[in-house]
Amino acid sequence: MESTDKPAPEPQKAAPPPEAAAPVPPPESKVPDRFVVADVVLRVILFAAAVTAVVVMVTGNQTKHVPVPRVAVPEKFNYSPAFIYFVAALSVAGLYSIVTTVISILALFKPGCSTKLLPHFVIFDVLILGIVAAATGAAGAVAYIGLKGNSHFGWAKICNNYHKFCQHLAASVAVSLFAAIVLVLLIILSAFSLSKKIPPRRDSDIRK
Amino acid sequence: MESTDKPAPEPQKAAPPPEAAAPVPPPESKVPDRFVVADVVLRVILFAAAVTAVVVMVTGNQTKHVPVPRVAVPEKFNYSPAFIYFVAALSVAGLYSIVTTVISILALFKPGCSTKLLPHFVIFDVLILGIVAAATGAAGAVAYIGLKGNSHFGWAKICNNYHKFCQHLAASVAVSLFAAIVLVLLIILSAFSLSKKIPPRRDSDIRK
Repeated sequence: MESTDKPAPEPQKAAPPPEAAAPVPPPESKVPDRFVVADVVLRVILFAAAVTAVVVMVTGNQTKHVPVPRVAVPEKFNYSPAFIYFVAALSVAGLYSIVTTVISILALFKPGCSTKLLPHFVIFDVLILGIVAAATGAAGAVAYIGLKGNSHFGWAKICNNYHKFCQHLAASVAVSLFAAIVLVLLIILSAFSLSKKIPPRRDSDIRK
Repeated sequence: MESTDKPAPEPQKAAPPPEAAAPVPPPESKVPDRFVVADVVLRVILFAAAVTAVVVMVTGNQTKHVPVPRVAVPEKFNYSPAFIYFVAALSVAGLYSIVTTVISILALFKPGCSTKLLPHFVIFDVLILGIVAAATGAAGAVAYIGLKGNSHFGWAKICNNYHKFCQHLAASVAVSLFAAIVLVLLIILSAFSLSKKIPPRRDSDIRK
């Protein structure tokens, strides 16, 4: 009886450690899921915003028969380097959002890997934010000169002649500002998602 | 024998979990110090860059006796809304860097509190990055029109007459671009600092 009892408790001893370790993962496994879902949604919104901004900017070409100069005078986005940079920046943001949405959806099915992904997401999100914010500023500044002119520098306003062109500019800049805000939210989400995974050990250790 | 064997394994079961948790904290206490020092250094650099950008922009006023119009024609940064926004944005970034440098230095002496600080630093760093990047883009776009003009929109270049003004503009935009890069590095540093504090529990659990 004793010889048969001794081997029996060994599997019982081996069993408890996984039981003790088991209660810790469940709260964690819920947290990344919620954050990853928000991440996916924000990235889809970012994609929509980037595509909208590019399409609105590119389709803003307007040709007007101005009486003051000679004949038909077109206005296109690629007449200003700021607008070319804007289209390039938002196109990059759109492509980036496709790639990261796919990665983020894959991370939904592998809850463990989001911890490794998030710092890398932050790096690229921050770079894209810098590019998109600078593009918004550049296009906004040029569009503002187009709208108001600048009498000190001798730059005449052009929006009194090109309503459609300027409406597209304004809409495009507004959408890209929205895309920049979405990127800010994505970075803040990643930072909080990371901070939620840090156990509050140090405080509890000191209090004990 | 059977009745005494059963209670004995229970204290043995309770003992392993604290031993397993104990070795994790020591590497953590070293990590934040190194990251916080880098954080303080980057914030001091950010302050220097922001102040330099503002001073260079504000001191760029130039008055020129142009023969073509009438008399002395000054060029000042506050003739363009983009430059006013630029000065405001970089001033905010400079003030923000002072406040956060002080907080970051205080965090050096309290290693435990950096975990709570970092997500908040990321939020405000990202907002300031958006503001500074947009200001850099706006000022850069207007400065580029000043340098090259835009024949399509009928905007003449002004930098052939105002060398000093344009040199200050260019230097100021370059320094604010540097400040934006420093902010990007600060956010990446915070993200990695947060990710280093997450224990690699999940992987070790799966491998066991």
